Parts: sequence; C-alpha cells; structure tokens
Amino acid sequence: MTSPQPAETRTQKRSAQTATLAEIAREAGVSAPTVSKVLNGRADVAPSTRARVEELLRAHGYRRRRAESTRSPLIDLVFHELESAWAMEVIRGVENVARDAGLSVVLSESAGRLTPGRTWADQVAARRPHGVILVLSGLDESQRALLTSRSIPFVVMDPAGDPGADVPSIGATNWQGGLAATRHLVDLGHTRIGAISGPTRMMCSRARMDGYRAALETAGLPVDPDLIMTGDFHHEAGYRQGLALLRRPDRPTAVFAGNDLQALGLYEAARELGLRIPQDLSVVGFDDLPVARWVGPPLTTVRQPLMEMAEAAARLVLDLGRDDGSAAATRVELATSLEVRSSTGAPPAV
Amino acid sequence: MTSPQPAETRTQKRSAQTATLAEIAREAGVSAPTVSKVLNGRADVAPSTRARVEELLRAHGYRRRRAESTRSPLIDLVFHELESAWAMEVIRGVENVARDAGLSVVLSESAGRLTPGRTWADQVAARRPHGVILVLSGLDESQRALLTSRSIPFVVMDPAGDPGADVPSIGATNWQGGLAATRHLVDLGHTRIGAISGPTRMMCSRARMDGYRAALETAGLPVDPDLIMTGDFHHEAGYRQGLALLRRPDRPTAVFAGNDLQALGLYEAARELGLRIPQDLSVVGFDDLPVARWVGPPLTTVRQPLMEMAEAAARLVLDLGRDDGSAAATRVELATSLEVRSSTGAPPAV
Repeated sequence: MTSPQPAETRTQKRSAQTATLAEIAREAGVSAPTVSKVLNGRADVAPSTRARVEELLRAHGYRRRRAESTRSPLIDLVFHELESAWAMEVIRGVENVARDAGLSVVLSESAGRLTPGRTWADQVAARRPHGVILVLSGLDESQRALLTSRSIPFVVMDPAGDPGADVPSIGATNWQGGLAATRHLVDLGHTRIGAISGPTRMMCSRARMDGYRAALETAGLPVDPDLIMTGDFHHEAGYRQGLALLRRPDRPTAVFAGNDLQALGLYEAARELGLRIPQDLSVVGFDDLPVARWVGPPLTTVRQPLMEMAEAAARLVLDLGRDDGSAAATRVELATSLEVRSSTGAPPAV
Repeated sequence: MTSPQPAETRTQKRSAQTATLAEIAREAGVSAPTVSKVLNGRADVAPSTRARVEELLRAHGYRRRRAESTRSPLIDLVFHELESAWAMEVIRGVENVARDAGLSVVLSESAGRLTPGRTWADQVAARRPHGVILVLSGLDESQRALLTSRSIPFVVMDPAGDPGADVPSIGATNWQGGLAATRHLVDLGHTRIGAISGPTRMMCSRARMDGYRAALETAGLPVDPDLIMTGDFHHEAGYRQGLALLRRPDRPTAVFAGNDLQALGLYEAARELGLRIPQDLSVVGFDDLPVARWVGPPLTTVRQPLMEMAEAAARLVLDLGRDDGSAAATRVELATSLEVRSSTGAPPAV
C-alpha cells in the first residue's frame, strides 16, 4: 500500500538509529548492553535504570532495526475479555492466518481493563512476536512506545476508544448496521422501537446507537430517551434491561439489542412476561454468532464478519512487520449485513 | 502426591543424564552442540541428523535436566478443534491459572486430526513452554518422546482415545453423566428414549452412551439400536439425526443428546416438525454451556465443570514441571451433575 523508500533514505535512517543506541546509553549513563537488555525485556535491570532508558528511547523515537531471525514465530492476541462466543470467532480467524504463516498464537486477556497491564508489555518485548492484535482493547502511550521501539507492529481490532489516526485498525460498519437494523423495524411498521445499547465507552457501541437514532429521525419518528437502555454486551444486561423496557405500560413493540447476547437476554425477559416473539415483540441483534441461528425463533441480526475481520487484522499486522515499519496507517471497516430470520414481524394490532 | 526421592538417587540420575548427552553425540557421530541444537528445536540441523539424534534420545530415554531459567513463560494449549463455545470455557480456565502464574497461553489447533502435526512438536521444543495441555487430542509416541526428552510436561484434558496409564489426564465422569441424564428421563415415565451420541472414536462420547445403556438396562427397558444415532458433537448433526429420529412412526418421546450443541440441533428439528419441547419431546444435553440457560425452553443438561477441569489441568501441568519429572501418573475425573431445567417433562399421553 506504500511505495518503497529509496535505498539511500533507508540507509541513512539505519545509521542514524545505530548511533542513537550508543547515544542513549551515554545519556542514560549506562553501557550499550544495558540498553539492549532493556530492549529485550530482560529482568536483570534495575527498575529505575529501565525507566530512564525507556524514557530516552521514547524521547529519541528510537526504533530497533528489524531482524527477522530474532523474532519468535508467534502472534500476540489480546482480548478485553474472553467471555463470549464472540471471542471464539476472532480466535479462529487469527489462528487461520497464523497457521498458514507457520506462527502460533499467544492469547492474553486484559481482564476487563481496557489496556493490558505493564507486565504484559514487558513479556511481549521479551518474547518478540511478529505482531500484536488488540481486540476491543487499546494501548496506552508508553505501551505503544515500547512496542514501536522494538519494531513490533500492532493492529487494533474493533477499537474500544478512538485509537488515534496513526494506529492501524480493523472494524466493521457499526453505524450502517444500527441503521439497517432499525430501518428494517421501521419498514415492518413499528413506531415504538426501543434499544439496549452496549457500554457507551466503546466506540462500536456508540456507532450502532447513532445508526439507530439516524434511522428513527430520517423516518420522522421521535427518539424517546426512555426507550434507550444501556447494557454491557452480556446476556444478563439484556435480560434486566429487557424486563425494565417490557414492563413499561407503553412498552416498545420492537427492540434493537446492541449484540446477540443481549438479544438472547431479551428473549428470556419476554418469555418470563409471556410475550411472544415476533407476534408481541420484534427483536434484532448484532454480531450473528452461530447461536443466533439456533435459538427459537431464529434471531434477525446484523452480521458482523468477525472471523474475516480477525483474518484481516492478522494479515495486516504481518504485512506491517514485513514492511520497513513505514506502512501507512490503515483503518479498514468491513461491511455488516442484515440477516432477516424469524424474530421480527409486523407490530401487534392495537 | 509422590514422596520426594532421596537426594542421592537424584544426583546419580543427573550425572547419568549428563554422560548420556555426550554418548548420544558420539553414537550419532556428531558434536555435543549439534545434539543441543536438536534439543532446542533449532532449524540449522540436517533432517537426517535430526532424525538420528531423536532416535537415540528416545532409545536412551534421555531426559534433559530441568532449568527453570531457560523456560519461556508460556503454557501450550492444543485443541482438537476450536469450533465451539466449549473451547472458550477451557481457554478461560487455562488463562486463569496461567495469569496467576505470570504465564501466557499459546493456542494451537490440531485442525481435526487427533494428534498435532510434527511441525507443532518442533515449535514446542523450540519455545520451551512450562507445559503442554492437550484437549480432546493426543500425542503420538514420537511426539511424547520429544516432549519427555526436553522435560516439557504434558497433560491430556478429556482424552479422545485411551491416553495410556502413564499419561496424566483430567476428565469428567462421563459415564455417570450419561446414566444420570437417562435415569432422569426414565423417572419421568419415558420408555422410548433415543440418543444422539458424539463420535465413537472419542472415549468421552463412548462413556456417555454406555451410561445411557446402563440406565435403560437397570430400569428393565430395552436398548433399541434403531433409536441410537451417531453424530459429531456439532449442531448440524443434532439437527439431521434429530430429524431422522423424530420422523420415525414410532418416534422416541425423549432424546439424550451427546452434548449441548447437538441438543440445540435437535431443538431445531423438533421446531421444524411442529413438536413442542417438553410437551411432545423431552431433551437432555451434556456440557452445560452458557447457552443452555438461554435457549427456549432452557435446556436440561449434564453439567461438566469445563472451566474447573481446565484449571485443574493447568495446575497439574505446572506441578509436574516443578517436580523432578517423577510425579506419579494421575488420572482425575471431576464430577458431573444433572441440571434440570424446562426441556424435560412427562411423556405425552398416548
């Protein structure tokens, strides 16, 4: 995607870098091997020395020369959390590309925090993978600097926050998906359409809800804030928020759930209240996990090509590694599509 | 679980081993560093030399001395296939233990074959993890020898075949689970109880079906081979075999499915034929995946403590690594339990 740099420039850059390592050692008042130890994530460096060296590496924009042979045949895959079938689809996609490239996948979980811990970054530096894929997760500035100085490329899949213009990322067309889901309900004749969104700190979740609002507004329907609940992408939230929505005297006749798991929680709430889907309530999900086809009634949902997204992320990170680290920042969004099944229909006659 | 060896014996063993490496080099007609290269999984050894050295390592029962410092902070987790929510529960369990131990998890898939490929074993030897966990998978003799000679411990979770008495393994009480599931149906009054088993080459699957047969026989009910279908643990098989069972003129009033995904396939078949669960058909699954609670009606199933089994497997493999490699072979089976929900009831009145 980028044209190769002229050989001259590249050589200049390299020699500048070599000088910098020695300079950094001098400035930090340590030996060059100590700087190497820091770069290799070795444990036998005093924390204060390590911090000083890292700071200088960052200040100088130091970038380790790429040496294919010193890399481990690994790709790091970091999840925000491993809780759902969603994660399985992503793992399978990365595993497909890794296997073809003769690489193994190292799995980590940032355990609910949205940036993985400091120890994680040190471990990655020490194991020198071909690249890092972060899912619904991000890196803080120092982690980003650490990977960059080791020339370990990284890609964010489905960024939680705004990853920054210079961070390559793979996502899906979340806004269009929310729009299509809601338009489908509008087209069926629904006028009171509720929503159970994912967490608002996640960009994908905000984009879906903005699509929902846009569909209502362009159809000339009011956006009623009382019909918009906030969940956390888990089944339990769909159930609880679903009960709250469906117990209202003016309950909605259709609900757009921020993902499939929340839609299944909503199914449970409807069952509990004796409401039939789709006769009394239409439901649309988001993701198209395998289970969406298996539940009764099969769920109408916005398909997100999760495995393909993961494959694209893995290929991108390997491309970045093969390049001279100068590949243009890339933001790719794969298309979502509405899968109409049996959970949506005309609103009940009043 | 084993008493420590006397220090004397241990020392003797060690010196015997040191001698053996030199001997192996002599016998193979190569230098000692070449033997080291083979042990470290380095690529720069001719294939014929490698084969000769591996053969001698195996013949001599060579076992590398354990050196904590040379191990990578990794655990290898190998799946037969990554296709289901089942795998997610296992990954979470291993991840929990690994995180507490400061280790990362390397994930591989043997892609449907029941033993991982040769390249995989070389990669494992080269990356020197703290241990290897194989799920529904096994190792052939040469792979086992390769790991043993590098002192890389391994544990089989839910063995597919018979792992051999000397292979530590973690499983669940599959036979008891099949028995409990079927007894529950018998107690409800069913006399025509069908089954959709998993693949017969998998021991866990055979054990479940034997429990099913034992429940029928001890209740004085006939075992009708026409009501026993063989699936492959996937949704699609449950659907297809379910249609075949339910289209019979003398269809069963209850079916024990070999796992939850097959039970969900059976739900779909019943829906398609207009049969209500549990009024017309009772269904029991096996696993208790999260989705079992979410489907309609919630699925009665045999709970297999997958996450706990994975945690036990991870702890066992780390224990084996801390020990002198002389830990007794262990075969642990965690208890299954029947979770009665809404998919089972009395048979329809004739």
